[in-house]
Amino acid sequence: MSRDIYLASVPLYEALSEWLKKLDSEGVLRPLSGEKIETIGSLGRVTAEAVSAKISSPFYHSSAMDGYAVRFAETFGASERNQKRLKTGEQAVYVDTGDPMPDGFNAVIMIEDVNIIRGTGSDDQYIEIISPATPWQHVRVIGEDIVATELILPENQVIRPVDIGAMLAGGHVEVLVRQRPKIVIIPTGTEIVEPGSDLKKGDIIEYNSRVLGGLVSEWGGDPVRFRIIPDNLEELKKAILDAHAMGDMIVINAGSSAGSEDFTAKAIGDLGEIVLHGVNIKPGKPVVLGWVKGKPVLGIPGYPVSAFITFTLFAKPLIHKWQGLDITEPETLKAKISRQVASTPGQEEFLRVKLGKVGDQCIATPVTRGAGVMMSLVRADGFLRIPAMSEGIGAGSEVEVELLRSKRDIENTIVCIGSHDNTLDLLANILKKRFPRYSLSSAHVGSMGGLMALKRGEAHMAGTHLLDEETGEYNISFIKKFLSGKGVLLINLVYREQGLLVPKGNPGNIRGFEDLAKGDVAFVNRQSGAGTRLLTDKCLRELGINPADVKGYDREEYTHMGVASAVLTGVADTGLAILASARALGLDFIPVAKERYDLAIPKEFLNIDMIGHFLKIIREDNEFRETVADLGGYDISDMGKVMYEA
Amino acid sequence: MSRDIYLASVPLYEALSEWLKKLDSEGVLRPLSGEKIETIGSLGRVTAEAVSAKISSPFYHSSAMDGYAVRFAETFGASERNQKRLKTGEQAVYVDTGDPMPDGFNAVIMIEDVNIIRGTGSDDQYIEIISPATPWQHVRVIGEDIVATELILPENQVIRPVDIGAMLAGGHVEVLVRQRPKIVIIPTGTEIVEPGSDLKKGDIIEYNSRVLGGLVSEWGGDPVRFRIIPDNLEELKKAILDAHAMGDMIVINAGSSAGSEDFTAKAIGDLGEIVLHGVNIKPGKPVVLGWVKGKPVLGIPGYPVSAFITFTLFAKPLIHKWQGLDITEPETLKAKISRQVASTPGQEEFLRVKLGKVGDQCIATPVTRGAGVMMSLVRADGFLRIPAMSEGIGAGSEVEVELLRSKRDIENTIVCIGSHDNTLDLLANILKKRFPRYSLSSAHVGSMGGLMALKRGEAHMAGTHLLDEETGEYNISFIKKFLSGKGVLLINLVYREQGLLVPKGNPGNIRGFEDLAKGDVAFVNRQSGAGTRLLTDKCLRELGINPADVKGYDREEYTHMGVASAVLTGVADTGLAILASARALGLDFIPVAKERYDLAIPKEFLNIDMIGHFLKIIREDNEFRETVADLGGYDISDMGKVMYEA
Repeated sequence: MSRDIYLASVPLYEALSEWLKKLDSEGVLRPLSGEKIETIGSLGRVTAEAVSAKISSPFYHSSAMDGYAVRFAETFGASERNQKRLKTGEQAVYVDTGDPMPDGFNAVIMIEDVNIIRGTGSDDQYIEIISPATPWQHVRVIGEDIVATELILPENQVIRPVDIGAMLAGGHVEVLVRQRPKIVIIPTGTEIVEPGSDLKKGDIIEYNSRVLGGLVSEWGGDPVRFRIIPDNLEELKKAILDAHAMGDMIVINAGSSAGSEDFTAKAIGDLGEIVLHGVNIKPGKPVVLGWVKGKPVLGIPGYPVSAFITFTLFAKPLIHKWQGLDITEPETLKAKISRQVASTPGQEEFLRVKLGKVGDQCIATPVTRGAGVMMSLVRADGFLRIPAMSEGIGAGSEVEVELLRSKRDIENTIVCIGSHDNTLDLLANILKKRFPRYSLSSAHVGSMGGLMALKRGEAHMAGTHLLDEETGEYNISFIKKFLSGKGVLLINLVYREQGLLVPKGNPGNIRGFEDLAKGDVAFVNRQSGAGTRLLTDKCLRELGINPADVKGYDREEYTHMGVASAVLTGVADTGLAILASARALGLDFIPVAKERYDLAIPKEFLNIDMIGHFLKIIREDNEFRETVADLGGYDISDMGKVMYEA
Repeated sequence: MSRDIYLASVPLYEALSEWLKKLDSEGVLRPLSGEKIETIGSLGRVTAEAVSAKISSPFYHSSAMDGYAVRFAETFGASERNQKRLKTGEQAVYVDTGDPMPDGFNAVIMIEDVNIIRGTGSDDQYIEIISPATPWQHVRVIGEDIVATELILPENQVIRPVDIGAMLAGGHVEVLVRQRPKIVIIPTGTEIVEPGSDLKKGDIIEYNSRVLGGLVSEWGGDPVRFRIIPDNLEELKKAILDAHAMGDMIVINAGSSAGSEDFTAKAIGDLGEIVLHGVNIKPGKPVVLGWVKGKPVLGIPGYPVSAFITFTLFAKPLIHKWQGLDITEPETLKAKISRQVASTPGQEEFLRVKLGKVGDQCIATPVTRGAGVMMSLVRADGFLRIPAMSEGIGAGSEVEVELLRSKRDIENTIVCIGSHDNTLDLLANILKKRFPRYSLSSAHVGSMGGLMALKRGEAHMAGTHLLDEETGEYNISFIKKFLSGKGVLLINLVYREQGLLVPKGNPGNIRGFEDLAKGDVAFVNRQSGAGTRLLTDKCLRELGINPADVKGYDREEYTHMGVASAVLTGVADTGLAILASARALGLDFIPVAKERYDLAIPKEFLNIDMIGHFLKIIREDNEFRETVADLGGYDISDMGKVMYEA
């Protein structure tokens, strides 16, 4: 029976419980039946029944030493004074370590403890011993490792390398393991194209199915990727039926919303039953939970972050359950949130955050909230759930973050908050190249934001290029003012050229800031607090231009590359940014100023191993220096030099 | 140059440093070169170069809403009073979410915010708007997710599902990843047979290569298993040369010691160079570190525990390094050791321990130290390293344990220390079957040992069957005496039959304990503190037999199955154990007593989730009850009943 729910707003816990109740009532919320596979190929699989030893290991008594097997009763009475002779071949049989004990023999005397004596007959030989053997001495008895019938592995155990060894030793060349759940993923959309296609405007590269498939693999399942299906109800229905025969669950991505070309819910409803359409979460609201002819069918939203979240929420529990594994909560970490987060009450939000351990505290910094920003998932270390009833979270609050990376990885991350520069990408890369365990995480909040983060103990370092117009000096007066009393080292990274970026050939014929007030030039600005924003304001002030007269002054980007991209793509005609960003995107560059870009590092962090390595790279690594020089617009003559120390 | 070292005793840190120095000086201690593979198949691989976006994502401006694309300049002046009309097709173009923006259009007005007006001409149509559009409103601009040239992944990054998505979005259908190190494993030994062979005395089932291969897979390498090579120097040398062409490292298992049939060191020395033969660790001393024609060759000892330890120590760092991953220390956990461990000074020992979280403390309990006991690795949760200089560790000391299971798994383990009963295996299995996240770990130290463990806070529960001869009652008086002041619940598990086990058909014609003093019957006993040992002593005392007159009274086993195995295999003629153990191994059984076997559980643990589930299984699970009944010799009429409460 199809329930008629049209983008409902069911709370997540209700949706989950309704979903699991449905699956349970249909009898599918339980482990899949087992399949016999070769034990040697069972690594990582899950046992579908208890494995008890068929045979003992070892399955015969064997010598644990190089020496002579004897019957211990025949050694009674031997002593230093009263040495005892045993005839070899009859009373004493030579054995190497591991050799089976001859029948009837029940002790071993080490080779070091016997004298070998030649007898009178041609083949006669004896051993002479000086102490009696105790029963079963130096014998590895049957079952020393595994006794037949003993439990080797319980049901529902994930098989490790040592488990494979024990099962083979216990006589199991085959093992009954849970079938891998087969999950068929159908990418849909008329505009969707395969990666590597010749791209034309309007095409969307299909990669969600690969992300979802990767998750299925990580969860122990077997992903099957269906061909791309255009936005057509009948074709989609046929695809669902074809996929139905191929796997245990069908996943349709996307078309799960309620737009004119969203057929997923309709197709599921026509073929079976919509359990729920629409869950009160953000991102991920337009999910479809369906049931078609005895199998679950998920309609997953198209935005990659929505897809990741909803698939994890609604598919993972079932994929685990099918393998006999528990539905486990994600690992969490308590952290302090670095800035205020407003949230619209009424929807449970999954906020992506970066995490860093700075000093004793773990700091969570929100990244972009756009559901379409795949890189936000690449960069995020975890999710922070903001309850539906909440209006937001105050800066400095303690929050619990569900982890996407390991705690160890998070502890090995250098947190750099402040101004953006393209060389930070290079630093992140070279650090991981030299020291794979360490990562550099940089958040771009402008120079002032960086210094404030240092003040609050939320970053290991801050990139800063703040010009004191009175002294003409960079950064130092700001550190004195805002970080007084904090021991800080100021180290130069680069001098760099800032300028106005314009499209190749400068079609607008822009000569400098003086052209920005003319009204026909669209500018793109940086966010307030950015050093580059201060430079813009200084230039305008010197020219007597009122910012209100600059078209686009209010349009803010957070990075140099953001500005360059806006100019390249026609969103703006010009913007102030560094030469490297112009070079990267092939833009023309009108020089405005050369400025100093430093890193401010509290001294308390200097003896941390990863910070030491980081500084060494800045000071000594030739590959890094050359790559920076290649970017263009950089002067590295003072790279690594201490500019100031407080 | 071959160095002539014959089973040296080099300390581990020296051996490791010499090994890594050798590899470094030969130029192999660095990442393998990269190979291009399809991005969609790169899950879990490691990037061999930085991945920067080739194209922006999205690569064209697209609408973020369903609505009309407009030129924002043409919307100036629209207001509620002064509505503005735009001609569709010319000034306003309908777009769905995701549609590319028509050329020259730079804002979208949501469908909800327009009125559609039919014009005077046949095809004329207009939209009416009541407020101006801001530049680029509701437009997903180029590069919103990824800006071309932006760093997507650094070098040496393990690729996750989301990384695959970002790489595909950034235009990478292929990615350069580290080659998987190929590790060729050669099993050797004339007595070695494949699992599943018809076994005869003297055969050894080959499983080490499968354990080592599994470890290689877990470490990201690609194991290649060579055929079994007999103990023959020339054949082994030929095998090494064949294997040399097949992989990056050759591993020979075993023949690494200095016995008469140990050819590994000789073969390596003949073909190349022995870097080291013999490391001062236990188990694992006879390891060979070799170098043949530009590739590392490891000679790994044959005992499974020695093989596991030495392979992890000497192969894992290289396999990681070859993939561009750091050599990482194993995760560790601080724990309190539950009993004293003596250690011979002069060798660094790798002690296997079980771990359990009981209350606030983590308890480490040593398991068997035998290098041949594979099950000790299956059961162990971690390794405790005892330094070469140490004579041992006192009970209650804090130690650091290198983990073999996750902390979460350890926290989800019920620690049961005390008397052994076969039903504990069944309980372990049914618990994991019903609740895959939970495990039952049972250590067999006898009933008294169990109560003492409860007293010290080292176990969640203890199995006990201590008869008070004065009262005829089981367990209660002992709990009163040894656990006074501790709130304890005593719950019956089973009544069970104890008796003398004898081989099928009772060839020795044993009728009861009265036959044990006759001198020709070999007895096998249980360890002191075991309830069954007390029962033995009571029986002997009642018959007036002096234990000194019982042959084998000093031979101790720790479990009922150990006693049964000793009788089955002829190590002993008889021993006292439960009927279930006789049934399991097909032995005859001479009944001696029926006794009560209870579980003592401190009340403080009763509200722990896993303990609650455990008790529910004992009280309500029919499958468990039936399986226990099937074992034979059990009376389950009081199963789960509270026998006493303190």
